[in-house]
Amino acid sequence: MPKDGYVVAVAGATGAVGEVMLQVLEQRKFPVRKLLALASERSVGKRLPFSGEEVRVEMLTRDAFKGVDIALFSAGAGRSLEFAPAAWQAGAVVVDNSSAFRMDREVPLVVPEINPHAIALYTQRGIIANPNCTTIVTLMALAPLHRFSRIKRVVASSYQAVSGAGAKALEELKQQVRAWARDQPLMVEVFPYQIAFNVLPHIDVFQENGYTKEEMKLVHESRKILEDPAILVSPTTVRVPVFTAHSVSVHVETEQKIPAAKARELFSAFPGLQLLDDPAAKQYPMPLYAAGKDDCYVGRIREDLAVPNGLNFWVCGDQLRKGAALNAVQIAEVLAERYL
Amino acid sequence: MPKDGYVVAVAGATGAVGEVMLQVLEQRKFPVRKLLALASERSVGKRLPFSGEEVRVEMLTRDAFKGVDIALFSAGAGRSLEFAPAAWQAGAVVVDNSSAFRMDREVPLVVPEINPHAIALYTQRGIIANPNCTTIVTLMALAPLHRFSRIKRVVASSYQAVSGAGAKALEELKQQVRAWARDQPLMVEVFPYQIAFNVLPHIDVFQENGYTKEEMKLVHESRKILEDPAILVSPTTVRVPVFTAHSVSVHVETEQKIPAAKARELFSAFPGLQLLDDPAAKQYPMPLYAAGKDDCYVGRIREDLAVPNGLNFWVCGDQLRKGAALNAVQIAEVLAERYL
Repeated sequence: MPKDGYVVAVAGATGAVGEVMLQVLEQRKFPVRKLLALASERSVGKRLPFSGEEVRVEMLTRDAFKGVDIALFSAGAGRSLEFAPAAWQAGAVVVDNSSAFRMDREVPLVVPEINPHAIALYTQRGIIANPNCTTIVTLMALAPLHRFSRIKRVVASSYQAVSGAGAKALEELKQQVRAWARDQPLMVEVFPYQIAFNVLPHIDVFQENGYTKEEMKLVHESRKILEDPAILVSPTTVRVPVFTAHSVSVHVETEQKIPAAKARELFSAFPGLQLLDDPAAKQYPMPLYAAGKDDCYVGRIREDLAVPNGLNFWVCGDQLRKGAALNAVQIAEVLAERYL
Repeated sequence: MPKDGYVVAVAGATGAVGEVMLQVLEQRKFPVRKLLALASERSVGKRLPFSGEEVRVEMLTRDAFKGVDIALFSAGAGRSLEFAPAAWQAGAVVVDNSSAFRMDREVPLVVPEINPHAIALYTQRGIIANPNCTTIVTLMALAPLHRFSRIKRVVASSYQAVSGAGAKALEELKQQVRAWARDQPLMVEVFPYQIAFNVLPHIDVFQENGYTKEEMKLVHESRKILEDPAILVSPTTVRVPVFTAHSVSVHVETEQKIPAAKARELFSAFPGLQLLDDPAAKQYPMPLYAAGKDDCYVGRIREDLAVPNGLNFWVCGDQLRKGAALNAVQIAEVLAERYL
């Protein structure tokens, strides 16, 4: 560790994830010597609270990374493609929350509880990719099962919170609900249709094969992170009118049978995952209670009625924290501890 | 048909489904000579609109069914068990929306588009059971596939509207949202936890096997209605903060491969099912737009990435209409046309 800690830049500091990145850096006492809050032109000059002080938002440019040790990016794939290589060239290691580099063979894609060893590859491009939020939440529960017995197939249907689509999307749900309560017309701008009191089976853009990009992320990223290209994934990703925290209904088939009791044991032992599975006492994970928490929550664990080696469960996680900002800071922690 | 039509009783006329039963009888011009609106004591004396007139709610008793030809029940399983046999004894054929008789071997369980022939069995007990709402919506899309190639396995995750839990549940979501908009505390009475801005992986009571009753209904009722006890179902049923219309993410495996194009053809040709599947034009089913409609809507049709004979799709239907009241009236229509 450099004397007095690291110079950390947050690119996209005023976004829904960027804001949480600042909070998480502070809460986890990441050794920050200096924090640079970077954003696009219209946010320059804003002041963001950090560690009892205020940080002025500066312009995100190629020259902004001089002297930066670690750059956390959450400013969209376009900006990551444009600025991450410059950051690395200036000497910063980039932890990128966008989808820009995730499937790049020379870029590690990391959930620190699952494949921290992959971080070592950062030297190739100077970038470590943070996985998609739904992928992280789902894999936090799949990883301990996969270690016990290889996963063959996953069927996953998601229930994703609006803040996963950004701060404006969160505001849109709030505005729609307030308008509904006042009998006023509801405005639709961010989402393709009204999200209040509705459910949209559409997240990110549709591909030729009928799946959305969001769905294909779960397919490809799961294989890369679990380091098993044979894993088969059938995804359906859906937006629900929840503010924060994604939920996923997961049906998994493994090579050997994993009895429900064994699964509970594996889940309990996995760091960052909390078992919440006592249906008789109405204990099961819900997004409202996972929001703001660092850990993911797993419950509704039961053996599949249809296939011999099948297991069904329900997992929730705050997609802004473990699904994005926290995971990125955890990667930075491993970087700091082992490599920088 | 008796001269001038039938004497029709609606038991549970003041409930969420009962109310829609009256609307549907009127809208479909069911030949009603006389309508009896029956309910429990506290609703007696209320007046309900029907065909431009008002019907006074009478007490639901064993003696209430004299002269009734068809009795539509939606007053809960307990009341069906108590009063349906008396209705039959008095000469009325019962169409029962509760779960009380659904799995009874002597009681047909019917979706008129799927197995209308089963209605003939009504003579055994005098009762025809209306299936569970989620089962109906899901099977409206599965049935045409099953006719083309036998279904082996279904993985279904539901997104169920609050009005499926009754009129009070609907009111609870509205109250919670209004309270939120006014910065007031949210009251929780009907659902086990706050439903506004939340998702509950819990519908009906939990069984020994870790599944809820709601989930097991999908397993058992699907087999009975599709008349194939070998069909395997993996269900997860979830409540979402939507007023009306259930949605289901369905992953199905069939004996022969059904290409997506063939599935669209089969869905299009099935009565009561509307194809809404043009992702490029943002056309896909959503509960907000299925609410108040008679048909179910299917879209997001795509071949499974994980299994050779797998197909994934998304189906929405108004659970008060096709999932309950409409289906019951449709059964009554077949009864009237063919048997009474």
